[in-house]
Amino acid sequence: MHTAATNQLVLYDTTLRDGAQGEDIHFSLSDKLRIAKRLDEFGIAYIEGGWPGSNPKDFSFFSQVKSLNLKQAKIAAFGSTRKAMLAVEEDQQIRLLLEAQSPVVTIVGKSWLLHVLEVLRTSEKENLAMIRDSVQFLKSHGREVIFDAEHFFDGYKSNKEYALQCIKAAEEAGADFIVLCDTNGGSLPWEIGQITSEVCSSCKVPIGIHTHNDGELAVANALWAIKSGARQVQGTINGYGERTGNCNLISVIANLELKMGQKVLPDGKLKELRELSLFVDEIANVRPNPKAPFVGRSAFAHKGGTHVNALQKLLRSYEHIDPALVGNHRRILVGELSGKSNIVLKAKELGIALEENNPNIQRVLNKIKELEAKGYEFESAEASFALLLRKLLSPYPSFFHLLEYHVSIRQLPSKNYKVCEATIKISIHGERVYTVAEGDGPVHALDRALREALVKFYPAIGQLRLEDYKVRIIDSTEGTASSIRVWVESTDGKEIWSTVGVSHDIVEASWLALFDSIEYWLLKKTENG
Amino acid sequence: MHTAATNQLVLYDTTLRDGAQGEDIHFSLSDKLRIAKRLDEFGIAYIEGGWPGSNPKDFSFFSQVKSLNLKQAKIAAFGSTRKAMLAVEEDQQIRLLLEAQSPVVTIVGKSWLLHVLEVLRTSEKENLAMIRDSVQFLKSHGREVIFDAEHFFDGYKSNKEYALQCIKAAEEAGADFIVLCDTNGGSLPWEIGQITSEVCSSCKVPIGIHTHNDGELAVANALWAIKSGARQVQGTINGYGERTGNCNLISVIANLELKMGQKVLPDGKLKELRELSLFVDEIANVRPNPKAPFVGRSAFAHKGGTHVNALQKLLRSYEHIDPALVGNHRRILVGELSGKSNIVLKAKELGIALEENNPNIQRVLNKIKELEAKGYEFESAEASFALLLRKLLSPYPSFFHLLEYHVSIRQLPSKNYKVCEATIKISIHGERVYTVAEGDGPVHALDRALREALVKFYPAIGQLRLEDYKVRIIDSTEGTASSIRVWVESTDGKEIWSTVGVSHDIVEASWLALFDSIEYWLLKKTENG
Repeated sequence: MHTAATNQLVLYDTTLRDGAQGEDIHFSLSDKLRIAKRLDEFGIAYIEGGWPGSNPKDFSFFSQVKSLNLKQAKIAAFGSTRKAMLAVEEDQQIRLLLEAQSPVVTIVGKSWLLHVLEVLRTSEKENLAMIRDSVQFLKSHGREVIFDAEHFFDGYKSNKEYALQCIKAAEEAGADFIVLCDTNGGSLPWEIGQITSEVCSSCKVPIGIHTHNDGELAVANALWAIKSGARQVQGTINGYGERTGNCNLISVIANLELKMGQKVLPDGKLKELRELSLFVDEIANVRPNPKAPFVGRSAFAHKGGTHVNALQKLLRSYEHIDPALVGNHRRILVGELSGKSNIVLKAKELGIALEENNPNIQRVLNKIKELEAKGYEFESAEASFALLLRKLLSPYPSFFHLLEYHVSIRQLPSKNYKVCEATIKISIHGERVYTVAEGDGPVHALDRALREALVKFYPAIGQLRLEDYKVRIIDSTEGTASSIRVWVESTDGKEIWSTVGVSHDIVEASWLALFDSIEYWLLKKTENG
Repeated sequence: MHTAATNQLVLYDTTLRDGAQGEDIHFSLSDKLRIAKRLDEFGIAYIEGGWPGSNPKDFSFFSQVKSLNLKQAKIAAFGSTRKAMLAVEEDQQIRLLLEAQSPVVTIVGKSWLLHVLEVLRTSEKENLAMIRDSVQFLKSHGREVIFDAEHFFDGYKSNKEYALQCIKAAEEAGADFIVLCDTNGGSLPWEIGQITSEVCSSCKVPIGIHTHNDGELAVANALWAIKSGARQVQGTINGYGERTGNCNLISVIANLELKMGQKVLPDGKLKELRELSLFVDEIANVRPNPKAPFVGRSAFAHKGGTHVNALQKLLRSYEHIDPALVGNHRRILVGELSGKSNIVLKAKELGIALEENNPNIQRVLNKIKELEAKGYEFESAEASFALLLRKLLSPYPSFFHLLEYHVSIRQLPSKNYKVCEATIKISIHGERVYTVAEGDGPVHALDRALREALVKFYPAIGQLRLEDYKVRIIDSTEGTASSIRVWVESTDGKEIWSTVGVSHDIVEASWLALFDSIEYWLLKKTENG
């Protein structure tokens, strides 16, 4: 019996596994958990969390993800069919797949005879047994089993009969989904379409599609397979992945929902598409691609004068979709648009009542423009944005002032001597406080010195914890004189908030983000009594 | 009579016109001339140079390009059909098209009735007359005329008859090519295929295709149109262009030649594909996309241990084409999943001969493991990795030693005072050198002080430039005491290399990456004499 619904098209995200194979992608355990949580909230049906048999970090993910109590997503552990000439129950990698205790297990197996003979160096027959045994064994332990047929299209083109025998073996053993993988990413859309259609008509089990972008065709290949009968589509957010990347789920989702009339997300989620894309880039510390289809900063940017003029007459004249549908917006590169309504909406979100005709809105817009030109980004730093609005729109209490800081770092490698020290002078409630602290690095030392200065006045500052700290270089072609954006996430154990600071000096940028974080916390404390 | 060959598929490059509409693209006149020369050498059949009617720079291009004496490419001037209710010979923009004296003129005209009525605000009939008059007039002046049917697919879907009337008008007036444009980039491949095929069967004139990447489908859409009968494909190098960009000719060319058996380049040119891509990025000052299909730095990079193992057994096991065919090469990434075979392959790549059973390999693996546990990543820091291999596997010259550095950052916001200063003490060639420098931030100051110390011994250090600088927090849950990885990319104008440093202190991590970068440069200089 297949546990998966057979007629509904489902999204399967492998950002945390295949995406992590990308050259520039390195997820920590906490990165992976945060992304899983977000993908669940967004409405992705399957989340492949990692390969428990490959490293301890991936294994820990599966135990920790349980405590996230995901709303709807099924977590899948990834592995491969058993080793050749080994009983399935003795295969360590298969055992770890069970120990991961995920409801879904996805196993990859060979379907290209060339690989069976020359890479696995085993027989046609043994490979079929490996597929059958592995699927059966996992099914007998109550798992939903997805079989990824590696190199399926290459295999099918070179030996159709054997490729079909491989997936038949998985089907007969009870697999819930069989996913056709264009592992090397070199197939053309019409090949993918025709082969998928042939497979769908000869299998009862629902078929999935897994593509790579080596020919710049991953999205087209996935869509074509879906059009030809595939019911599951595998990909990664923003197309992360080895070489040229996996199929970009962001574009797949938008095309399915907006062009092909296939609903794959819960109601109201499509408009979070851009936010999701930015969130994952932020966690992965990848600079968002401005030209990314649907969600990129330039995706609805218009430069040419004729286009802009036509746009004024007729919105859809140079736009394939309404950018708001995916949470993006139009940008006119000559003669900026006002965006007043955005500020009003944002202020409302933050609990600040504001009329559209309030003259202060223009001041806010000017300030944002000025800060964005310096490299500030408020999309993922709402606490800094809230402070900015509060300071410009309503009377604002002042908590403390920085008078001076000094940081000194001395290192003598031959003597194994290193010291990093920060001094801070602040004025608070009319008092002048002067503190000094050491730290692992300059920012750590500053953070400690500032807490030391504030603890007498705000003892609860001990609860304040920095959860995350990220650094992004802007205009990196300036080398060590580039602008630097620091993003900090803080918590008091109840709420989480993010702040941002920008400077040519990383210490100053960090200081600005830290300062905003503490100020936001003080403001919240004051307002909540 | 049509002057274009009708059965040969031809490449039409619009990097210099539509590509220049990209948000980040700004070509000078000399940039445009250099690119035109290179495209000609590469074997592109048509080069669209600009819109003589839109600005004087584009107009000058057409007079200056003549003195380049291109070998084979035809230069096209771009413009639009005449204005409504104006005699064609009185249209200033059309006159400038003739004055450009290019052998080819490409004019864009409306084929979507909605645009005729609501953007042009003229009648169905007048638009047809505009097309007819403009094509006829340019033909009567001896030009090869290409008609770009703007928004053709949207037009066809909303009013097929009128869209066809538009291109029929161009055909009857003597156009040599009619190009179907998916101007808004929102069409799906099967729509493009079907419509192109219908048009091809109802027209005698050869049909071309012009697509945009708004759905991440531009390349697939172009290929599908070609498969359905199109004989000209328009695009830009690296997919430059407004919004999400135009169809990427680089990927189109590689797919046509390597996957579809369609020869579009002169013999021996395909292997210059990567060079062409990098050349145009260099002129446009665009950072090359490492994930670019076929030509990107990561396009044939392999990370996973299983993949690397399989590659040794069978090259095509995880590669869709031989990278050398497009002038690219395989890269083995050294990472947490790596084994002995990665090290051997990597050493070979770096020119260090190493047998699989060399006992030093284990030392290298242990060292890598130890450094990776600290947060090092060598996958994208090949120069640091090469230094490590060199130091562990062969006698290594020492260039200079750090004795001490000190960094001081003082800030007094109320007095608007800020100074960041670094002192460095090194021992070099038996001499002790002590320097001091200020900078925008601590790393900038250290970088300057170090150069100051080295310039007397290595005057060529002035050529050394930092190209990129990235900071990544590892285990960011430690807040400001987290480990920090700094990645630096450097160049001496000829080669580019990357290095890495890790520490809890961002200044020290940056110092380590800088130090490796300079040491690698010195090593290369020494080894190359």
